[in-house]
Amino acid sequence: MRILGVDPGLTRCGFGVIDTLPARKAAMVAVDVFRTPSADSVDLRLGSLAEAFDTWLDTHRPDVVAIERVFARNDVSTIMGTAQASGLTMGLAARRGIPVAMHTPSEVKAAITGSGRADKKQVTNMVTRILGLDAPPKPADAADALAIAICHSWRGALSAQSTPGMNKDLTERKGSGRQGSGLTKAQEQWARALRNAK
Amino acid sequence: MRILGVDPGLTRCGFGVIDTLPARKAAMVAVDVFRTPSADSVDLRLGSLAEAFDTWLDTHRPDVVAIERVFARNDVSTIMGTAQASGLTMGLAARRGIPVAMHTPSEVKAAITGSGRADKKQVTNMVTRILGLDAPPKPADAADALAIAICHSWRGALSAQSTPGMNKDLTERKGSGRQGSGLTKAQEQWARALRNAK
Repeated sequence: MRILGVDPGLTRCGFGVIDTLPARKAAMVAVDVFRTPSADSVDLRLGSLAEAFDTWLDTHRPDVVAIERVFARNDVSTIMGTAQASGLTMGLAARRGIPVAMHTPSEVKAAITGSGRADKKQVTNMVTRILGLDAPPKPADAADALAIAICHSWRGALSAQSTPGMNKDLTERKGSGRQGSGLTKAQEQWARALRNAK
Repeated sequence: MRILGVDPGLTRCGFGVIDTLPARKAAMVAVDVFRTPSADSVDLRLGSLAEAFDTWLDTHRPDVVAIERVFARNDVSTIMGTAQASGLTMGLAARRGIPVAMHTPSEVKAAITGSGRADKKQVTNMVTRILGLDAPPKPADAADALAIAICHSWRGALSAQSTPGMNKDLTERKGSGRQGSGLTKAQEQWARALRNAK
Protein backbone atom coordinates (compact mmCIF):
# COMPACT_ATOMS: atom_id res chain seq x y z
CA MET A 1 0.00 0.00 0.00
CA ARG A 2 1.26 3.45 -0.93
CA ILE A 3 0.49 6.31 1.45
CA LEU A 4 0.93 10.04 0.86
CA GLY A 5 1.29 11.91 4.14
CA VAL A 6 0.50 15.63 4.20
CA ASP A 7 1.60 18.11 6.84
CA PRO A 8 -0.67 20.94 5.70
CA GLY A 9 0.31 24.58 5.67
CA LEU A 10 0.47 27.65 3.50
CA THR A 11 4.04 28.70 4.26
CA ARG A 12 5.27 25.11 4.39
CA CYS A 13 3.32 22.07 3.23
CA GLY A 14 5.08 18.76 3.78
CA PHE A 15 4.54 15.80 1.44
CA GLY A 16 5.89 12.32 2.22
CA VAL A 17 5.22 9.11 0.31
CA ILE A 18 5.88 5.63 1.71
CA ASP A 19 5.21 2.07 0.62
CA THR A 20 4.21 -0.25 3.42
CA LEU A 21 6.20 -3.46 3.83
CA PRO A 22 5.54 -6.57 5.95
CA ALA A 23 6.23 -6.54 9.68
CA ARG A 24 5.40 -2.87 10.26
CA LYS A 25 8.21 -1.70 8.01
CA ALA A 26 7.94 0.92 5.31
CA ALA A 27 10.06 2.26 2.45
CA MET A 28 10.37 5.95 1.69
CA VAL A 29 9.40 6.82 -1.88
CA ALA A 30 9.62 10.62 -1.88
CA VAL A 31 9.58 13.56 0.50
CA ASP A 32 9.61 17.32 0.15
CA VAL A 33 8.29 20.52 1.65
CA PHE A 34 6.40 22.83 -0.69
CA ARG A 35 6.75 26.48 0.23
CA THR A 36 4.90 29.59 -0.90
CA PRO A 37 6.14 33.12 -0.19
CA SER A 38 4.16 34.91 2.52
CA ALA A 39 4.34 38.11 0.45
CA ASP A 40 2.04 36.54 -2.15
CA SER A 41 -1.74 36.75 -1.82
CA VAL A 42 -3.45 33.78 -0.20
CA ASP A 43 -5.30 32.80 -3.38
CA LEU A 44 -2.07 32.63 -5.38
CA ARG A 45 -0.43 30.58 -2.66
CA LEU A 46 -3.36 28.16 -2.60
CA GLY A 47 -3.37 28.00 -6.39
CA SER A 48 0.26 26.93 -6.53
CA LEU A 49 -0.29 24.49 -3.67
CA ALA A 50 -3.15 22.93 -5.66
CA GLU A 51 -0.83 22.50 -8.63
CA ALA A 52 1.92 21.00 -6.49
CA PHE A 53 -0.40 18.59 -4.70
CA ASP A 54 -2.04 17.37 -7.89
CA THR A 55 1.43 16.75 -9.31
CA TRP A 56 2.26 14.59 -6.28
CA LEU A 57 -0.99 12.66 -6.76
CA ASP A 58 -0.23 12.18 -10.47
CA THR A 59 3.37 11.15 -9.88
CA HIS A 60 2.97 8.80 -6.92
CA ARG A 61 -0.64 7.58 -7.26
CA PRO A 62 -1.16 6.91 -3.55
CA ASP A 63 -3.79 4.42 -2.35
CA VAL A 64 -4.62 6.72 0.52
CA VAL A 65 -3.82 10.28 1.61
CA ALA A 66 -3.19 10.88 5.33
CA ILE A 67 -3.41 14.50 6.50
CA GLU A 68 -2.59 15.99 9.87
CA ARG A 69 -5.79 17.19 11.47
CA VAL A 70 -5.95 20.92 12.11
CA PHE A 71 -6.61 21.77 15.70
CA ALA A 72 -8.61 24.53 17.29
CA ARG A 73 -6.24 26.81 19.09
CA ASN A 74 -6.66 30.07 20.90
CA ASP A 75 -5.64 32.26 18.03
CA VAL A 76 -7.75 31.57 14.95
CA SER A 77 -5.51 33.56 12.62
CA THR A 78 -2.63 31.14 13.09
CA ILE A 79 -4.64 28.15 11.93
CA MET A 80 -6.51 29.79 9.06
CA GLY A 81 -3.79 29.08 6.49
CA THR A 82 -3.47 25.51 7.74
CA ALA A 83 -7.25 25.01 7.55
CA GLN A 84 -7.34 26.37 3.99
CA ALA A 85 -4.41 24.19 2.89
CA SER A 86 -5.93 21.10 4.50
CA GLY A 87 -9.35 21.81 2.94
CA LEU A 88 -7.71 22.16 -0.46
CA THR A 89 -5.69 18.93 -0.25
CA MET A 90 -8.64 16.98 1.19
CA GLY A 91 -10.91 18.13 -1.63
CA LEU A 92 -8.37 17.42 -4.37
CA ALA A 93 -7.69 13.90 -3.11
CA ALA A 94 -11.35 13.06 -2.47
CA ARG A 95 -12.48 14.20 -5.91
CA ARG A 96 -10.19 11.51 -7.37
CA GLY A 97 -11.82 8.89 -5.19
CA ILE A 98 -8.70 8.54 -3.03
CA PRO A 99 -9.57 7.78 0.61
CA VAL A 100 -8.50 10.53 3.01
CA ALA A 101 -7.58 9.89 6.63
CA MET A 102 -6.98 12.49 9.31
CA HIS A 103 -4.68 12.01 12.29
CA THR A 104 -4.04 14.44 15.10
CA PRO A 105 -0.48 15.52 15.94
CA SER A 106 -0.54 13.54 19.20
CA GLU A 107 -1.84 10.43 17.44
CA VAL A 108 1.08 10.70 15.02
CA LYS A 109 3.63 11.19 17.78
CA ALA A 110 2.20 8.35 19.83
CA ALA A 111 2.21 6.01 16.85
CA ILE A 112 5.80 6.80 15.94
CA THR A 113 7.48 7.20 19.32
CA GLY A 114 5.06 5.69 21.82
CA SER A 115 4.45 9.12 23.37
CA GLY A 116 1.92 11.71 22.27
CA ARG A 117 4.22 14.38 23.67
CA ALA A 118 7.40 13.44 21.84
CA ASP A 119 9.45 16.34 20.51
CA LYS A 120 10.39 16.97 16.90
CA LYS A 121 13.81 15.37 17.24
CA GLN A 122 12.42 12.13 18.66
CA VAL A 123 9.90 11.92 15.80
CA THR A 124 12.63 12.57 13.22
CA ASN A 125 14.91 9.95 14.76
CA MET A 126 12.18 7.30 14.76
CA VAL A 127 11.10 8.13 11.20
CA THR A 128 14.73 7.79 10.08
CA ARG A 129 15.03 4.41 11.81
CA ILE A 130 11.66 3.02 10.68
CA LEU A 131 12.36 3.89 7.06
CA GLY A 132 15.91 2.54 7.27
CA LEU A 133 17.46 5.81 6.12
CA ASP A 134 21.15 6.62 6.49
CA ALA A 135 20.39 10.15 7.61
CA PRO A 136 17.31 12.15 8.67
CA PRO A 137 15.09 13.09 5.71
CA LYS A 138 15.63 16.54 4.25
CA PRO A 139 14.52 19.28 4.39
CA ALA A 140 14.48 19.25 8.19
CA ASP A 141 10.73 19.73 8.52
CA ALA A 142 9.95 16.97 6.01
CA ALA A 143 9.95 14.19 8.61
CA ASP A 144 6.48 15.17 9.85
CA ALA A 145 4.78 14.27 6.57
CA LEU A 146 6.50 10.88 6.60
CA ALA A 147 5.50 10.39 10.23
CA ILE A 148 1.84 10.99 9.31
CA ALA A 149 2.09 8.40 6.53
CA ILE A 150 3.76 5.85 8.85
CA CYS A 151 1.18 6.53 11.56
CA HIS A 152 -1.56 5.84 9.06
CA SER A 153 -0.02 2.58 7.86
CA TRP A 154 0.06 1.29 11.41
CA ARG A 155 -3.44 2.36 12.29
CA GLY A 156 -5.00 0.35 9.51
CA ALA A 157 -5.37 1.99 6.18
CA LEU A 158 -8.97 2.38 5.19
CA SER A 159 -10.45 1.98 8.64
CA ALA A 160 -8.82 5.27 9.65
CA GLN A 161 -10.83 7.37 7.26
CA SER A 162 -12.21 10.63 8.48
CA THR A 163 -15.71 9.23 8.56
CA PRO A 164 -18.06 10.03 11.41
CA GLY A 165 -17.32 7.75 14.32
CA MET A 166 -13.90 6.90 12.98
CA ASN A 167 -12.25 7.08 16.37
CA LYS A 168 -14.77 4.77 17.91
CA ASP A 169 -14.34 2.44 15.01
CA LEU A 170 -10.59 2.44 15.42
CA THR A 171 -10.78 1.81 19.11
CA GLU A 172 -13.03 -1.15 18.58
CA ARG A 173 -10.77 -2.57 15.91
CA LYS A 174 -7.61 -1.90 17.85
CA GLY A 175 -6.86 -5.50 18.75
CA SER A 176 -8.28 -7.05 15.64
CA GLY A 177 -4.93 -7.32 13.84
CA ARG A 178 -5.45 -6.19 10.26
CA GLN A 179 -3.04 -7.29 7.48
CA GLY A 180 -5.03 -9.46 5.22
CA SER A 181 -8.03 -9.54 7.52
CA GLY A 182 -10.15 -6.58 8.58
CA LEU A 183 -10.05 -4.52 5.41
CA THR A 184 -13.30 -5.79 3.98
CA LYS A 185 -15.56 -4.11 6.48
CA ALA A 186 -13.70 -0.81 6.21
CA GLN A 187 -13.80 -0.94 2.44
CA GLU A 188 -17.52 -1.47 2.60
CA GLN A 189 -17.89 1.59 4.81
CA TRP A 190 -15.85 3.62 2.40
CA ALA A 191 -17.77 2.48 -0.63
CA ARG A 192 -21.00 3.32 1.18
CA ALA A 193 -19.78 6.81 2.02
CA LEU A 194 -18.72 7.31 -1.58
CA ARG A 195 -22.13 6.27 -2.88
CA ASN A 196 -23.86 8.59 -0.44
CA ALA A 197 -21.81 11.48 -1.71
CA LYS A 198 -23.15 11.11 -5.24
CA MET B 1 -17.29 41.78 -16.72
CA ARG B 2 -18.56 38.47 -15.36
CA ILE B 3 -18.24 37.89 -11.62
CA LEU B 4 -18.78 34.64 -9.72
CA GLY B 5 -19.64 35.34 -6.09
CA VAL B 6 -19.04 32.59 -3.53
CA ASP B 7 -20.59 32.36 -0.07
CA PRO B 8 -18.33 29.59 1.18
CA GLY B 9 -19.45 26.74 3.40
CA LEU B 10 -19.48 22.99 3.74
CA THR B 11 -23.16 22.51 4.53
CA ARG B 12 -24.22 25.26 2.15
CA CYS B 13 -21.99 26.92 -0.44
CA GLY B 14 -23.65 29.71 -2.41
CA PHE B 15 -22.69 30.47 -6.02
CA GLY B 16 -23.96 33.55 -7.86
CA VAL B 17 -22.90 34.79 -11.29
CA ILE B 18 -23.59 38.30 -12.57
CA ASP B 19 -22.63 40.33 -15.61
CA THR B 20 -21.91 43.96 -14.88
CA LEU B 21 -23.80 46.56 -16.91
CA PRO B 22 -23.34 50.32 -17.26
CA ALA B 23 -24.59 52.69 -14.55
CA ARG B 24 -24.05 50.35 -11.60
CA LYS B 25 -26.50 47.80 -12.93
CA ALA B 26 -25.93 44.10 -13.21
CA ALA B 27 -27.68 41.11 -14.74
CA MET B 28 -28.05 37.80 -12.96
CA VAL B 29 -26.66 34.87 -14.95
CA ALA B 30 -27.04 31.99 -12.51
CA VAL B 31 -27.46 31.31 -8.83
CA ASP B 32 -27.60 28.21 -6.65
CA VAL B 33 -26.65 26.83 -3.27
CA PHE B 34 -24.58 23.65 -3.29
CA ARG B 35 -25.20 21.45 -0.27
CA THR B 36 -23.39 18.44 1.15
CA PRO B 37 -24.86 16.17 3.83
CA SER B 38 -23.34 16.69 7.27
CA ALA B 39 -23.39 12.92 7.79
CA ASP B 40 -20.70 12.50 5.13
CA SER B 41 -17.02 12.74 5.96
CA VAL B 42 -15.39 16.13 5.44
CA ASP B 43 -13.10 14.91 2.66
CA LEU B 44 -16.04 13.56 0.63
CA ARG B 45 -17.92 16.82 1.13
CA LEU B 46 -14.92 18.86 -0.02
CA GLY B 47 -14.40 16.51 -2.97
CA SER B 48 -17.93 17.03 -4.23
CA LEU B 49 -17.65 20.78 -3.59
CA ALA B 50 -14.49 20.82 -5.72
CA GLU B 51 -16.37 19.10 -8.54
CA ALA B 52 -19.29 21.49 -8.25
CA PHE B 53 -17.13 24.61 -8.17
CA ASP B 54 -15.02 23.55 -11.14
CA THR B 55 -18.24 22.92 -13.06
CA TRP B 56 -19.35 26.48 -12.30
CA LEU B 57 -15.99 27.82 -13.49
CA ASP B 58 -16.23 25.74 -16.68
CA THR B 59 -19.82 26.71 -17.37
CA HIS B 60 -19.71 30.43 -16.63
CA ARG B 61 -16.04 31.33 -17.19
CA PRO B 62 -15.97 34.28 -14.78
CA ASP B 63 -13.41 37.09 -15.15
CA VAL B 64 -13.08 37.24 -11.40
CA VAL B 65 -14.18 35.20 -8.38
CA ALA B 66 -15.31 37.12 -5.27
CA ILE B 67 -15.41 35.15 -2.02
CA GLU B 68 -16.74 36.15 1.37
CA ARG B 69 -13.85 36.40 3.77
CA VAL B 70 -13.94 34.01 6.70
CA PHE B 71 -13.81 35.73 10.03
CA ALA B 72 -12.18 34.77 13.26
CA ARG B 73 -14.89 34.08 15.78
CA ASN B 74 -14.89 32.78 19.29
CA ASP B 75 -15.60 29.20 18.41
CA VAL B 76 -13.05 27.86 15.97
CA SER B 77 -15.04 24.71 15.19
CA THR B 78 -17.83 26.70 13.57
CA ILE B 79 -15.53 28.32 11.03
CA MET B 80 -13.38 25.32 10.20
CA GLY B 81 -15.72 24.08 7.46
CA THR B 82 -16.01 27.57 6.04
CA ALA B 83 -12.24 28.01 6.06
CA GLN B 84 -11.75 24.68 4.29
CA ALA B 85 -14.40 25.48 1.68
CA SER B 86 -12.95 28.94 1.07
CA GLY B 87 -9.42 27.57 0.81
CA LEU B 88 -10.61 25.01 -1.73
CA THR B 89 -12.48 27.50 -3.92
CA MET B 90 -9.64 30.05 -3.72
CA GLY B 91 -7.09 27.47 -4.80
CA LEU B 92 -9.23 26.10 -7.65
CA ALA B 93 -9.89 29.57 -9.06
CA ALA B 94 -6.31 30.79 -8.65
CA ARG B 95 -4.81 27.75 -10.38
CA ARG B 96 -6.76 28.75 -13.49
CA GLY B 97 -5.33 32.22 -13.33
CA ILE B 98 -8.66 33.76 -12.34
CA PRO B 99 -8.24 36.74 -9.99
CA VAL B 100 -9.75 36.14 -6.56
CA ALA B 101 -11.10 38.94 -4.36
CA MET B 102 -12.15 38.65 -0.74
CA HIS B 103 -14.82 40.81 0.90
CA THR B 104 -15.95 40.74 4.50
CA PRO B 105 -19.64 40.29 5.37
CA SER B 106 -19.90 43.90 6.55
CA GLU B 107 -18.24 45.20 3.40
CA VAL B 108 -20.82 43.32 1.35
CA LYS B 109 -23.74 44.60 3.42
CA ALA B 110 -22.43 48.16 3.30
CA ALA B 111 -21.96 48.03 -0.47
CA ILE B 112 -25.44 46.64 -1.12
CA THR B 113 -27.56 48.44 1.49
CA GLY B 114 -25.43 51.33 2.74
CA SER B 115 -25.19 49.75 6.18
CA GLY B 116 -22.64 47.20 7.35
CA ARG B 117 -25.21 45.92 9.82
CA ALA B 118 -28.07 45.30 7.42
CA ASP B 119 -30.07 42.14 8.02
CA LYS B 120 -30.53 39.28 5.61
CA LYS B 121 -33.90 40.53 4.38
CA GLN B 122 -32.57 43.99 3.50
CA VAL B 123 -29.72 42.45 1.56
CA THR B 124 -32.10 40.13 -0.31
CA ASN B 125 -34.43 43.00 -1.14
CA MET B 126 -31.63 45.15 -2.50
CA VAL B 127 -30.14 42.29 -4.50
CA THR B 128 -33.56 41.62 -6.04
CA ARG B 129 -33.92 45.27 -6.95
CA ILE B 130 -30.38 45.79 -8.27
CA LEU B 131 -30.63 42.75 -10.53
CA GLY B 132 -34.13 43.73 -11.69
CA LEU B 133 -35.65 40.41 -10.63
CA ASP B 134 -39.41 39.85 -10.31
CA ALA B 135 -38.93 37.91 -7.08
CA PRO B 136 -36.12 37.27 -4.60
CA PRO B 137 -33.57 34.76 -5.93
CA LYS B 138 -34.07 31.16 -4.86
CA PRO B 139 -33.10 29.20 -2.84
CA ALA B 140 -33.59 31.68 0.00
CA ASP B 141 -29.95 31.74 1.04
CA ALA B 142 -28.71 32.25 -2.52
CA ALA B 143 -28.90 36.04 -2.37
CA ASP B 144 -25.68 36.27 -0.35
CA ALA B 145 -23.54 34.92 -3.18
CA LEU B 146 -25.09 37.45 -5.59
CA ALA B 147 -24.54 40.21 -3.04
CA ILE B 148 -20.83 39.35 -2.88
CA ALA B 149 -20.61 39.52 -6.67
CA ILE B 150 -22.45 42.86 -6.80
CA CYS B 151 -20.29 44.25 -4.00
CA HIS B 152 -17.23 43.30 -5.96
CA SER B 153 -18.46 44.90 -9.18
CA TRP B 154 -18.94 48.20 -7.39
CA ARG B 155 -15.62 48.09 -5.69
CA GLY B 156 -13.77 48.08 -8.95
CA ALA B 157 -12.83 44.66 -10.18
CA LEU B 158 -9.13 44.11 -10.08
CA SER B 159 -8.28 46.79 -7.58
CA ALA B 160 -10.19 44.78 -4.98
CA GLN B 161 -8.08 41.68 -5.37
CA SER B 162 -6.76 40.05 -2.28
CA THR B 163 -3.29 41.32 -3.01
CA PRO B 164 -1.05 42.77 -0.32
CA GLY B 165 -1.75 46.45 0.10
CA MET B 166 -5.19 46.20 -1.44
CA ASN B 167 -6.90 48.01 1.39
CA LYS B 168 -4.55 50.95 1.24
CA ASP B 169 -4.93 51.13 -2.49
CA LEU B 170 -8.70 51.14 -2.30
CA THR B 171 -8.85 53.69 0.47
CA GLU B 172 -6.71 56.05 -1.55
CA ARG B 173 -9.07 55.71 -4.46
CA LYS B 174 -12.00 56.63 -2.29
CA GLY B 175 -12.78 60.06 -3.59
CA SER B 176 -11.73 59.56 -7.17
CA GLY B 177 -15.28 58.92 -8.35
CA ARG B 178 -14.81 56.32 -11.00
CA GLN B 179 -17.25 55.93 -13.89
CA GLY B 180 -18.28 59.54 -13.35
CA SER B 181 -21.45 58.31 -11.67
CA GLY B 182 -22.71 58.32 -8.10
CA LEU B 183 -20.16 55.81 -7.04
CA THR B 184 -18.20 58.17 -4.85
CA LYS B 185 -20.61 58.03 -1.96
CA ALA B 186 -20.94 54.28 -2.11
CA GLN B 187 -17.20 53.92 -2.21
CA GLU B 188 -16.89 56.15 0.81
CA GLN B 189 -19.41 54.05 2.69
CA TRP B 190 -17.56 51.01 1.73
CA ALA B 191 -14.19 52.42 2.75
CA ARG B 192 -15.72 53.36 6.09
CA ALA B 193 -17.13 49.88 6.59
CA LEU B 194 -13.71 48.55 5.72
CA ARG B 195 -12.07 50.65 8.38
CA ASN B 196 -14.71 49.74 10.95
CA ALA B 197 -14.34 46.08 10.18
CA LYS B 198 -10.69 46.08 11.21
